[in-house]
Amino acid sequence: MTQKFTMDTSSTGECRRRTPDIETVREIGSRCSNWARWGADDQLGTLNNVTPANVVAAASLIRTGRVMSLSVPFGSGGPQHPGSGRFNPIHLMSVDGRDFMAGSGTPEERDRRRGYLQNADDILILPLQAATQWDGLAHVFFEQQMYNGYSASYVTSSGAQRNAITGAVDKIVGRGVLLDLPAVKGTSSLDPGYAIGAQDLEDACTDQGVTVGPGDFVLIRTGAMARVRERGEWADYAGGDAPGLGLDSADWLHERDIAGVATDTWALEVVPSETPDVSQPLHIIFIVHMGLWLGEIFDLEELARTCHEQARHEFFFAAQPLKVTGGIGSPINPLAVF
Amino acid sequence: MTQKFTMDTSSTGECRRRTPDIETVREIGSRCSNWARWGADDQLGTLNNVTPANVVAAASLIRTGRVMSLSVPFGSGGPQHPGSGRFNPIHLMSVDGRDFMAGSGTPEERDRRRGYLQNADDILILPLQAATQWDGLAHVFFEQQMYNGYSASYVTSSGAQRNAITGAVDKIVGRGVLLDLPAVKGTSSLDPGYAIGAQDLEDACTDQGVTVGPGDFVLIRTGAMARVRERGEWADYAGGDAPGLGLDSADWLHERDIAGVATDTWALEVVPSETPDVSQPLHIIFIVHMGLWLGEIFDLEELARTCHEQARHEFFFAAQPLKVTGGIGSPINPLAVF
Amino acid sequence: MTQKFTMDTSSTGECRRRTPDIETVREIGSRCSNWARWGADDQLGTLNNVTPANVVAAASLIRTGRVMSLSVPFGSGGPQHPGSGRFNPIHLMSVDGRDFMAGSGTPEERDRRRGYLQNADDILILPLQAATQWDGLAHVFFEQQMYNGYSASYVTSSGAQRNAITGAVDKIVGRGVLLDLPAVKGTSSLDPGYAIGAQDLEDACTDQGVTVGPGDFVLIRTGAMARVRERGEWADYAGGDAPGLGLDSADWLHERDIAGVATDTWALEVVPSETPDVSQPLHIIFIVHMGLWLGEIFDLEELARTCHEQARHEFFFAAQPLKVTGGIGSPINPLAVF
Amino acid sequence: MTQKFTMDTSSTGECRRRTPDIETVREIGSRCSNWARWGADDQLGTLNNVTPANVVAAASLIRTGRVMSLSVPFGSGGPQHPGSGRFNPIHLMSVDGRDFMAGSGTPEERDRRRGYLQNADDILILPLQAATQWDGLAHVFFEQQMYNGYSASYVTSSGAQRNAITGAVDKIVGRGVLLDLPAVKGTSSLDPGYAIGAQDLEDACTDQGVTVGPGDFVLIRTGAMARVRERGEWADYAGGDAPGLGLDSADWLHERDIAGVATDTWALEVVPSETPDVSQPLHIIFIVHMGLWLGEIFDLEELARTCHEQARHEFFFAAQPLKVTGGIGSPINPLAVF
Repeated sequence: MTQKFTMDTSSTGECRRRTPDIETVREIGSRCSNWARWGADDQLGTLNNVTPANVVAAASLIRTGRVMSLSVPFGSGGPQHPGSGRFNPIHLMSVDGRDFMAGSGTPEERDRRRGYLQNADDILILPLQAATQWDGLAHVFFEQQMYNGYSASYVTSSGAQRNAITGAVDKIVGRGVLLDLPAVKGTSSLDPGYAIGAQDLEDACTDQGVTVGPGDFVLIRTGAMARVRERGEWADYAGGDAPGLGLDSADWLHERDIAGVATDTWALEVVPSETPDVSQPLHIIFIVHMGLWLGEIFDLEELARTCHEQARHEFFFAAQPLKVTGGIGSPINPLAVF
Repeated sequence: MTQKFTMDTSSTGECRRRTPDIETVREIGSRCSNWARWGADDQLGTLNNVTPANVVAAASLIRTGRVMSLSVPFGSGGPQHPGSGRFNPIHLMSVDGRDFMAGSGTPEERDRRRGYLQNADDILILPLQAATQWDGLAHVFFEQQMYNGYSASYVTSSGAQRNAITGAVDKIVGRGVLLDLPAVKGTSSLDPGYAIGAQDLEDACTDQGVTVGPGDFVLIRTGAMARVRERGEWADYAGGDAPGLGLDSADWLHERDIAGVATDTWALEVVPSETPDVSQPLHIIFIVHMGLWLGEIFDLEELARTCHEQARHEFFFAAQPLKVTGGIGSPINPLAVF
Repeated sequence: MTQKFTMDTSSTGECRRRTPDIETVREIGSRCSNWARWGADDQLGTLNNVTPANVVAAASLIRTGRVMSLSVPFGSGGPQHPGSGRFNPIHLMSVDGRDFMAGSGTPEERDRRRGYLQNADDILILPLQAATQWDGLAHVFFEQQMYNGYSASYVTSSGAQRNAITGAVDKIVGRGVLLDLPAVKGTSSLDPGYAIGAQDLEDACTDQGVTVGPGDFVLIRTGAMARVRERGEWADYAGGDAPGLGLDSADWLHERDIAGVATDTWALEVVPSETPDVSQPLHIIFIVHMGLWLGEIFDLEELARTCHEQARHEFFFAAQPLKVTGGIGSPINPLAVF
Repeated sequence: MTQKFTMDTSSTGECRRRTPDIETVREIGSRCSNWARWGADDQLGTLNNVTPANVVAAASLIRTGRVMSLSVPFGSGGPQHPGSGRFNPIHLMSVDGRDFMAGSGTPEERDRRRGYLQNADDILILPLQAATQWDGLAHVFFEQQMYNGYSASYVTSSGAQRNAITGAVDKIVGRGVLLDLPAVKGTSSLDPGYAIGAQDLEDACTDQGVTVGPGDFVLIRTGAMARVRERGEWADYAGGDAPGLGLDSADWLHERDIAGVATDTWALEVVPSETPDVSQPLHIIFIVHMGLWLGEIFDLEELARTCHEQARHEFFFAAQPLKVTGGIGSPINPLAVF
């Protein structure tokens, strides 16, 4: 079922195809580039596509008041593997309930000593890319440059001095669209290694009676999370072969002036990459050239069921990041509101 | 300017007043209790007051598409003091941009070796109560019990097994109302130690032409954040004397069946406490007895300006917490949408 | 090759044997108990066995000036498995060298601006039990009590208020003795599940011409670390079946008044436990009843080679813990000096 | 009382003095450089000065068996200030004693369910430079180079690929010498800003009847820790004005081929620096040019009392660092053994 991306390189009308490589990435990147489109100082990329009118229009999609979270749990049972440089969130209590259940004196005496206040507090240690997340525009560089031509040297041990996540704190609200690919294809989930192309996205729009346009947040379901639930473990969800966006999807997404795209997979793009010599080519094209906001590890299962029940694949979407100074990405709890 | 809370304890019509104490807290707590109101198994408290109809109605407040963040920055420059058990977020880079700017071989050789992928990643260490946040219902106990009568022993080193923040992931969306107290009183900020009472809240509603009702998220501006900006440092913002909700506000808030309340201060309630023998009595009444969701360290300055400009103090509000397994609270980026 | 521990429960001279269980643990624990031996206030346990004279005598073992570290590396490649509640150390740079290799202005200008100082700093996040370590006496409880009868309630979210690691900061210096069990048995490593008994220890002493006495730190090599090196991965080193001390070793170690014991395994004691109903029975007997200091994940390979080369299995030993306030254990870098 | 460092720059016999500056630092650094002294591949610097014979000789200083720790506590009450990029150690319990003191069922039932094992575990988050520590040779760069000419680019977000602390794990054992400067000067502590020079060190040696020679670890007491104890708070101990080594001490220490030097202050060298244009010039000279190991935040109070009582200022010294992969420095518990 794996679809192979090839490129028509014919200038004579004869169709010849070659394996995509770094040159392919450069060509698509160049074609889809948004550098300087919103000014030399821009640090928001495709979030510029969201207008106040988009937000108002999106509000009209709130009709039943049903709200759902698209987040996986942030905890020790998450998808990350040790040794990858990422780890699952570590949640620790600096004070807990049982701290108040013993000690010297009677409970009454202890209560009086502390003015009756008993409070628990907790601490979280997490990679900002640990679970459901946005990749910010300082997350990926290509040849030492990031989105809009900023040097990678702006991202030091102190964080991102350009393209930080903080610019997006009030920008990720608008219309959400679900493209449920397995539903279109009559399967429960796409196969690992399946590269989603333009026609797949087009088919999904047609089948689900939805259009994708400027300022939209496009959520693409591959069914990978359903597989995780089915087998009862994450297994190689993080880093293993997975379905995802393919090189052929880039122009389609670029032309529609969307604001962001997210999937229910770890990498968003297909794994293994279609380019033998380039690792994660779409992270380069999307983040560096397009300034496109990528969401990963979204749980789209309940959303898909709701879209089918309500027979509509559009909804109000709010997935604002935390305002982390110098942040490269952010853990999020994306909401869909119907 | 400090207002003193006193209680009418007369049963004969004669008005006698006494300094509030633990008995006052018990009385108010008992009167405002929501235990068992939504069933013996409830873990959501006042978020039950938000109905789908509330969400739909709130959506109609989105008219101009203006979105604003009510979050302070999460970074080393935050308000927390060391030694308090809380600390400011620690943001670290596990990979940064400059990591790709040197090494053995030419840049081209290095690029080829790593398949052209250059990505930065970051890690955050933070108390969930470090900056703009929700206190969850497992955050405070009274006499070893938390909201709805659950034992404090449910909150162990592994986190909250009852009343965890995860229950709220899809519940904190609805109508937001700003009560701008300094504006009503014609001052720039309330004095430290000022206890906000029912009449203050009533006056604000009248003055600002807004009502507070079931399912609302009530944001109360004291001007404390304006003070921080004015003096250019947090100083004793965390833990020092501050204006905030007083005991007299409890019944007013309870009667209106609100969903949550937040302020621009560190403690939400007035500091020092009105009760010499009880530390933070309103955390006990609100969280333990009412199951009321408390937001702290909100930045309400731009919101206040916008409300005045648009001559309306109501808006769509989304402040969903992260889905932290067993979490006691959550860092948030609350949004107001006009 | 697995040795089975059984107990002679005959009171008539007839030898009957039964599977050890919680009653066995209670019997051995009671027999080997050091509670109250060094006073009701003691928090050091067997470290009381180290006298100044022991230290002076140990110094005489320093004859060639050869020093070696018995520590495994503290890094992401360590033995811990995620999901176990422990994780490998996370090492992060808050400032690194490349931070100084770019920026605005010439290198000279940047140097002048910062007064020529360029410094790197780093941060470590680690379970104190992550790698080579001491278990302190607050690490294990039995029926809610720890060594010397202190209630487990002394160990709160704030750390150990009794039996903390800090008491040992100047106590873990003295004579080290290596008992190299595979060498005695003519094998490269003991089999997983092999329970080391009194006779094994006795044989090793005889074979290696060494005695074990009061105040000694006894290092027991099982060869588990050699296995790790041989297979090139930790695999199930942490938590999997492993050789280790068995129930039969308890009296032998107790009678000799040693100061501490350490092995090259994750658990020190044999896994699986000999007691079907008790998990890690020797942690209970050793730590809770005896107040014995346990060292784990020691790398004894180079030490074993050196002992054989120098034909002596005793040396000066210094394995002082960090002075972690309220600490349960400590990462260490144990040294053997010949 | 502040001593001013000046340099004789006369080539004619005429004594002219100037304020030291970056050129002074270059001159001293060049004069005291150990680059290439122990080979182009050396990563140990002055630890090469410790020979096996030194270790054996040091062992002969163990005469009474008295052991003492020179570490301050690692805990929330440490000296670091927030905002400095360093913070005090954060100690958290992942499991504590009270976790076992409640739960469903009787204590006996709970015990049986978990196989009777009750263990506490803890986690530490700390800058490796938080408290008593070694600065490793990758800690400071000068003009993008570190000790022995390695490029600063070897120290990436992944840690030090050259001059890492791991090289020292078995090297920091030998003879310790205490130079108690306030005792020599008949005061309780040196004044903040006092720059210790060669004559001060010479006087201390004479007064205390001790010599400093090859392979020694020289501990220099300024009395700063006594001041902290006296005033009951760290105050500006970290980063504020302090006594410490001055530029004039560099040649003296270099000529003696010592292995390391440590003080009871935060910065080791005098603050403010003697060079208006160079921040911490001795960190540059010592670490980068000499490859000298620097110890900071040592508690030398009990040590000083013991040296005076025993009328000897030399002792066996073991201050081995943790084996932190890629580490820049290490928290330590230095021991003096008499």
